[in-house]
Amino acid sequence: MKSPPVSALAPAVNPDIDSERRASSFDVEKLVNFWDGGAERTRLRRAVEHVINSDPVFSRENQYFLTPTESYEAAVKKSVHLCQKIKELGWTDDGPEVQFAFRILGSELAFGVHNLVFIPTIMKLGTDAQIAKWVPLAKDYHIIGTYAQTELGHGTNLRALETTATFDASSQDFVLNTPKVSSIKWWPGDLGRSASHAVVLAQLYTQGVCHGMHAFIVQVRSLLDHSALPGISVGDIGPKLAFEQVDNGYLRMQNVHIPKDNMLSRYSRVASDGSYIKQGSDRINYISMVFTRVGILSREILPALAKACVIAVRYSAVRRQSELSLGRQNFAFHLMGSSLEAFCKKVNLQIKTERNISSLPELHALSAGMKALMSATCTAGVETCRRACGGHGYSMLSGLPSLYGRVVASCTYEGENTVMLLQTARFLMKCLARVDSGQPLPQSVSYLSEPVSRYCSAKEKTDFFKPFLYTEAYKHRAQRLIKDSGDKLQSLLQSGFEQYVAWNVTSAQLAKTAIAHCQYIVVKNFVEIIEGLKLEAEVQQVIKRLCDLHALTGILSNAGDFLYDGYITGKQLDLVTSSHLDLLALIRTDAVSIVDAFDYSDQQLNSAIGSYDGNSYQHLFEWAQKSPSNAKVNLAYEKYLKPRFQAALSKL
Amino acid sequence: MKSPPVSALAPAVNPDIDSERRASSFDVEKLVNFWDGGAERTRLRRAVEHVINSDPVFSRENQYFLTPTESYEAAVKKSVHLCQKIKELGWTDDGPEVQFAFRILGSELAFGVHNLVFIPTIMKLGTDAQIAKWVPLAKDYHIIGTYAQTELGHGTNLRALETTATFDASSQDFVLNTPKVSSIKWWPGDLGRSASHAVVLAQLYTQGVCHGMHAFIVQVRSLLDHSALPGISVGDIGPKLAFEQVDNGYLRMQNVHIPKDNMLSRYSRVASDGSYIKQGSDRINYISMVFTRVGILSREILPALAKACVIAVRYSAVRRQSELSLGRQNFAFHLMGSSLEAFCKKVNLQIKTERNISSLPELHALSAGMKALMSATCTAGVETCRRACGGHGYSMLSGLPSLYGRVVASCTYEGENTVMLLQTARFLMKCLARVDSGQPLPQSVSYLSEPVSRYCSAKEKTDFFKPFLYTEAYKHRAQRLIKDSGDKLQSLLQSGFEQYVAWNVTSAQLAKTAIAHCQYIVVKNFVEIIEGLKLEAEVQQVIKRLCDLHALTGILSNAGDFLYDGYITGKQLDLVTSSHLDLLALIRTDAVSIVDAFDYSDQQLNSAIGSYDGNSYQHLFEWAQKSPSNAKVNLAYEKYLKPRFQAALSKL
Repeated sequence: MKSPPVSALAPAVNPDIDSERRASSFDVEKLVNFWDGGAERTRLRRAVEHVINSDPVFSRENQYFLTPTESYEAAVKKSVHLCQKIKELGWTDDGPEVQFAFRILGSELAFGVHNLVFIPTIMKLGTDAQIAKWVPLAKDYHIIGTYAQTELGHGTNLRALETTATFDASSQDFVLNTPKVSSIKWWPGDLGRSASHAVVLAQLYTQGVCHGMHAFIVQVRSLLDHSALPGISVGDIGPKLAFEQVDNGYLRMQNVHIPKDNMLSRYSRVASDGSYIKQGSDRINYISMVFTRVGILSREILPALAKACVIAVRYSAVRRQSELSLGRQNFAFHLMGSSLEAFCKKVNLQIKTERNISSLPELHALSAGMKALMSATCTAGVETCRRACGGHGYSMLSGLPSLYGRVVASCTYEGENTVMLLQTARFLMKCLARVDSGQPLPQSVSYLSEPVSRYCSAKEKTDFFKPFLYTEAYKHRAQRLIKDSGDKLQSLLQSGFEQYVAWNVTSAQLAKTAIAHCQYIVVKNFVEIIEGLKLEAEVQQVIKRLCDLHALTGILSNAGDFLYDGYITGKQLDLVTSSHLDLLALIRTDAVSIVDAFDYSDQQLNSAIGSYDGNSYQHLFEWAQKSPSNAKVNLAYEKYLKPRFQAALSKL
Repeated sequence: MKSPPVSALAPAVNPDIDSERRASSFDVEKLVNFWDGGAERTRLRRAVEHVINSDPVFSRENQYFLTPTESYEAAVKKSVHLCQKIKELGWTDDGPEVQFAFRILGSELAFGVHNLVFIPTIMKLGTDAQIAKWVPLAKDYHIIGTYAQTELGHGTNLRALETTATFDASSQDFVLNTPKVSSIKWWPGDLGRSASHAVVLAQLYTQGVCHGMHAFIVQVRSLLDHSALPGISVGDIGPKLAFEQVDNGYLRMQNVHIPKDNMLSRYSRVASDGSYIKQGSDRINYISMVFTRVGILSREILPALAKACVIAVRYSAVRRQSELSLGRQNFAFHLMGSSLEAFCKKVNLQIKTERNISSLPELHALSAGMKALMSATCTAGVETCRRACGGHGYSMLSGLPSLYGRVVASCTYEGENTVMLLQTARFLMKCLARVDSGQPLPQSVSYLSEPVSRYCSAKEKTDFFKPFLYTEAYKHRAQRLIKDSGDKLQSLLQSGFEQYVAWNVTSAQLAKTAIAHCQYIVVKNFVEIIEGLKLEAEVQQVIKRLCDLHALTGILSNAGDFLYDGYITGKQLDLVTSSHLDLLALIRTDAVSIVDAFDYSDQQLNSAIGSYDGNSYQHLFEWAQKSPSNAKVNLAYEKYLKPRFQAALSKL
């Protein structure tokens, strides 16, 4: 298996990718700064990245060769090391360095639920005394906690959860039970092998009455030897599509007693005699669910797509697969890559604006729909990038299968996408009723009462580069679909169907309506932000093209919706196809520079085919040779093949 | 981690799935027989399955917990065992028992390339003497061979392959070289850790002239100790998205000498003086490529979708996720499941008819397009099933991630899908030119010269249950898209573009056109087969409904194409939506029975959530506890967490 060093054959930087960079229409560093939110933040991010990349504990070498158990061990090691490092360097808890460090290491750390859910939940739902007791221990990893809500048989519908916490006035204890197999807590991260504690969501019973879901701190394992405490079965739920480093777990409780003080009691408590006392509203919690949802967009979903685009565009630039594309690169591929970059830019801007929205139902509806739209679109985008790399996109060493495996999970966690879209649709239907009764509308849906043109005014293909024109088309489509869904529901109700039956029968149409609404908001927002930008002309032009590309791609891939009522005619759709092709040709020459501007280091990408130098084949060959499957001892050969092969010796 | 046995809590068969089965409109066994091709074949298949399921070597227990190396070892063990078993039981080489055995064990065996490509290639391209020498050795696994064609930098475009085989008249040897990094053979199955030999595809050079691609048998490893032979580097390319049990490999050759007799010489040979002699045409080889492509449909692609449907439909029947769906099941999900089952039935029938087609270009074009359409559709279908199972679909124990990981590869291997569609499109464009010049057309495209209605005649929703009506719609769409693509190409050529530029600019539209053509053929074929069936009325009705569902789902998901020129109006599209919903309600009551009729044993499905008894939660809990991640020793705890946890002891 020995061979001469490949590096001897490799030029410093692949000449094809080099010439792509020379042809760029704009200054990449300027786009990097825009993307980071200013040159100073670019500097700081790079400084943090340097600290991480130069620390051998954080090395990603051989990452794709680890078993799930090894991945978990490496993640725990890195997390504990990072905790120490942050103290040593004097980085403050919520300072930008810590944020950057978590963003850079993100998927390789353990204790995500501990840091992002367990601690915040105690801080939100706990009393001051509870916060003072538990949070400092958790921050120093003296305890590791999980958040145990989902059950084997119950995910999205919280009211159906079966775990109970019954107050026993005689012992002043809560007694926790998962009465059925379907009640066993399932999926919580950090629970399988790490957690000492859990915030358990359970139906509170006291004085024989159920008061609904409440949160309790339950110790699950001994702090002395990590064994399960009495009445508790706890363990790992086994292998998953990705997230190998996370120990998702199960928790079964049979008459587990916890102290009365372990009920998180900021908003409600149980008195010694067992009476239930509510104090204030816990609606504030909905906001935190929304922020978690928006948080995963920038933390998990968008980086996956950005990285996939970098890998696929760079590999595409050096690949000479088909004779036709020699020196010009694969056209069809860039169609995808650039459109996805456009999506990345846009949603990043989107998130920033969402902070301004104050009305709770509107915020909830918007974030639910956006989460569904963006997770589904980014997942499809990562997969498109992966397939665009041909066979090599199927190798773990490309980095693409791992990115897909993680991002596709976001379609299910933090609210399953169809459920999310139907929540958005419910909000839209309520708003529609307000229009009919003349009530004022929340800002994001105010367009429901605005006039909109009946027909698209485009006469030539350049008309489709006018932001007003395509935004209006999206607006018309969203408005029409919302009204059609409302009419459908009304007519079903008038035919005598019950409300929930009418809703179920219309659900596919309602989900589609919610998507159309969110797509309109995204396009409108992108256009508005560009209008407010004051960047150099070349950079501004690139961003404008990405916006156009995003909007036109959306029209082409939802053509039926725009043709349905004649808003866009078949002839106009041909113009869209034509302007879309023109746009691709323009963006294609900048594609490598656009993905360079995401500014991921080779270490962070960890892709044999996506490195900055473009030497995909050399890296693949070098990395593959390190695979443990090339270990000297091949048991299968020794046991099963050797005896048979030797029989051939006499015949050959 | 101990807990009372869950089975104590589990009823024999889940009552929800039981009542689904009681409500079935038809006799499941009749559909099983139809699906198998007769009651006798059902009996034989079950007998073979019984032999396999009762042999502990073939057990699938703990399959999801294996490392890639363990998977490979298990696959080699099973393959060698099967080889012995076939001899013991006296099953003949190409008899139905062997075919069933390979189908049942399929994805768990090693030596797929050896059996399906290496041996057949020698039989096709070798002389009688070569066949007599190599094939018996290979059949007994006294040698293991691979087929080394794809290179690091070259997949689809065979003419660009860089590996050379140069004839040396002085030594009467061929000298093989992979001159560059991009020429290293990459991906061949069975090469990484098993193969002793390889059929290597290389550019033949003799007397200073290149004669293009030829095939050579190259020994790569010693039969004595499995070490790489001189001049050869060979090894495993490392982890992949799936196919853990297959040792895909790399092969680098530097001045590797092989005997002159090792060039496969049925159609061309090199004389001792180095002169090149062609004898007969090797076009016959194209047919084998076509059969390989069609073979993977029934062997790999369709079973993946069928299994995913079984798992998702059964789990959906026992799941009580949302209160709204208590006792009625999730409506949206069945939309998907049943439509996919329809697709399965149809393509199975499709394959049978393809055998009849004798014209080579037509067969090539049709199989290329069908491979692309079906691999993409089945992949999307498996993923839809996986997501429909919510969080549990993300667990390897559901069986769904593995099915997805394998089937998605079929979009890339045996001809990348976009390349395949463009080959179909090229054929369609040639046929279009024939129409214009009045020449006769191959049967599958004869509709190009047939008249077709300009407008859909549907007036009420039941009209869309008429096979003639929807087949005509598909026909109109395919005909229009083919003609539009032809016009587009013509106008580009007349504007002075070179042929290949015009083709590239039109490629997205051409790919779409090829899909429309294939979809029309599939619908037409399904309809024709149903008309010829003579089954019991109830079974016939179920199949007819699946056909309608398939056709209407296709219209809805490609609505833009049908609306574009007004063939279907917006109002008619509403009728399609409405009849589609009616159809779903009808099929929904039979959904469990329809997937039962695929007749997969629990062992073959190997899904914790998809077993026949419907006790998904019990199985998940039992299986998870066996995960090696629940091993007693947790190094990460011992090393990193224990010291920190003990600091908490004094404070809690």
